[in-house]
Amino acid sequence: MTPAEIDGYLDDCRVLALEELERIVPAHGRYAPVLYGLMLDYPRRVSKGLRPALCIATCRALGGALEPVLSSAAVLELYHNAFLIHDDVEDGSELRRDRPTLHRTHGVPVAVNVGDAMLALALEPLLDNMAAVGLGKALRIMRVVARMARESAEGQALELDWMRRGRWDLTDVDYVRMVYKKTSWYTFIAPVLIGAIVTGASPAALAELRRFAALLGIAFQIQDDVLNLVGEQARYGKEIAGDLWEGKRTLALSHALRSTQTGDREQMCAVLLKPRPYDEGDPGVHKTSDEVRWLAGLIDRSGGVDYAQRVAGRYARRAARALQRATWIEPSIHRDFLAALVDFVVDRDR
Amino acid sequence: MTPAEIDGYLDDCRVLALEELERIVPAHGRYAPVLYGLMLDYPRRVSKGLRPALCIATCRALGGALEPVLSSAAVLELYHNAFLIHDDVEDGSELRRDRPTLHRTHGVPVAVNVGDAMLALALEPLLDNMAAVGLGKALRIMRVVARMARESAEGQALELDWMRRGRWDLTDVDYVRMVYKKTSWYTFIAPVLIGAIVTGASPAALAELRRFAALLGIAFQIQDDVLNLVGEQARYGKEIAGDLWEGKRTLALSHALRSTQTGDREQMCAVLLKPRPYDEGDPGVHKTSDEVRWLAGLIDRSGGVDYAQRVAGRYARRAARALQRATWIEPSIHRDFLAALVDFVVDRDR
Repeated sequence: MTPAEIDGYLDDCRVLALEELERIVPAHGRYAPVLYGLMLDYPRRVSKGLRPALCIATCRALGGALEPVLSSAAVLELYHNAFLIHDDVEDGSELRRDRPTLHRTHGVPVAVNVGDAMLALALEPLLDNMAAVGLGKALRIMRVVARMARESAEGQALELDWMRRGRWDLTDVDYVRMVYKKTSWYTFIAPVLIGAIVTGASPAALAELRRFAALLGIAFQIQDDVLNLVGEQARYGKEIAGDLWEGKRTLALSHALRSTQTGDREQMCAVLLKPRPYDEGDPGVHKTSDEVRWLAGLIDRSGGVDYAQRVAGRYARRAARALQRATWIEPSIHRDFLAALVDFVVDRDR
Repeated sequence: MTPAEIDGYLDDCRVLALEELERIVPAHGRYAPVLYGLMLDYPRRVSKGLRPALCIATCRALGGALEPVLSSAAVLELYHNAFLIHDDVEDGSELRRDRPTLHRTHGVPVAVNVGDAMLALALEPLLDNMAAVGLGKALRIMRVVARMARESAEGQALELDWMRRGRWDLTDVDYVRMVYKKTSWYTFIAPVLIGAIVTGASPAALAELRRFAALLGIAFQIQDDVLNLVGEQARYGKEIAGDLWEGKRTLALSHALRSTQTGDREQMCAVLLKPRPYDEGDPGVHKTSDEVRWLAGLIDRSGGVDYAQRVAGRYARRAARALQRATWIEPSIHRDFLAALVDFVVDRDR
């Protein structure tokens, strides 16, 4: 598949899920302007649309029809965007998909409430699913959604705990465990499992697909962190070096901390621990742009970005092999798309 | 029922739900200290335990057993405490049940994430319910939970919108609609409906119980607002006059705004619109203690508290009549408890 074909596939799925979402979210009435309209704000901003594409492609690759999987794909978008809104509050992020975050435009109270309402609203199409895919599959999909939400909350809890306690003595294994929960489960594993469940896939098939999705998710997140360090803001849509401003743990940073001399390392940790300018705390203790640039320079000189990209490449190759072994998935454009995603996640620049 | 008997019934149910909750929330393992332990923080603080008591009492009054309703009672507590955590973030509240709020002790990011994780975790006992109460009832309970979460998000959205836009031209009907969604649905209607569904109650029975719960919930919230104005901090456990600091719409305040002369009314609205001292904004524009005391004095002189209590009394009496009409509910201590709650919600001082 060419990059343009991948983009086309992603875009088609994003539009399909958005149209379904617009059917699920009440667009009229008293609560539309204060609640439901805001639910569609993030989903309507341009995004990759990875989750619906993974869900739809898996279902189609396994011989399933489009119609019965659409509502689950929309539910995934509803959850995803709810967590994005809450993540933006938690991280104090300023931009999301090139535009101000919801809590910046409407305040923290509205943003928290809109996210909660999206999580609540997601229950209804999951229950309605029984008519579309049957009781057994609908219940299995709900179990996956419950697990997905738990895993990402656990991953988020780990990361927040590291940041709160100023933990820098982390290994790559710690990082991968966090990312497996936070990114793999909710961006890759759940969409792939749900797409497969709709087709009635066997437990063995689900296990193979899950392995593929887990590995791909880890590769994706490592590349995401790399883009945060080196990407162009216009292409990527988030604040550049936002992870350094926020003090997030990434492979490139861990590598730099390991390969830097003790004095510099202590200085790095001290800077990383400082809050950002608009966070609470005394103005004197905030990070400065110079300090963030200094951190980025140290990571650069340590070869942290190359290191992270090598690790991402290894996970991507393992994901590719996991998919190759699933020879029971017949050739199709949908299978091709899943295979093409492997290179896409590590080669992408957005 | 004597006040001591009501307290005893509430306390028994609170403990039963807490014990069930402690079975649902994983207490050991890597994520206990950073996530699951924090889920039990609010539920372990002393509270009235209204929701589990309403759920259990309705089930028992309709001839149901205790065991099959316990897990739903615990789910209600999980939802309730998740929303409390998020509400405290949204309102910037400092105290919850006499102790610092979760976002004050652990920061906004952890508090938002713990709330999300509780909402996610609640899905699992709801699905497990199928074994305890059967598929049909379990699905109906999930529909009620989904509706409850939506209604409270809508009520919250209304209130936040009024506060953000400085809307003071509200009628008592506006207030009651907001409270019906925000308080009645989630503290009264959902617990009562779920307790009744477990016993296999008919749609007609559910409709009668729902009316009782809706009226009782409105009376409860009006009294809650009154206690916020006049209660003693030690008995009530929240900041006193916190609603005035936050600029919340209440019946007593609306009454005072209606009965105050134009100049004072404009001054009141101007003060109410100001943020609290620890909110964002220029230090010069924050509310002061003197201003909040001035507001409270105006409400007092306008007879706003008496007015609110009269309205609460009317809703309570309508709730009492709704329960009396449900003659198909046999006499029992559980029915007595539901009847006794009517006086309890308007006479309570905490």
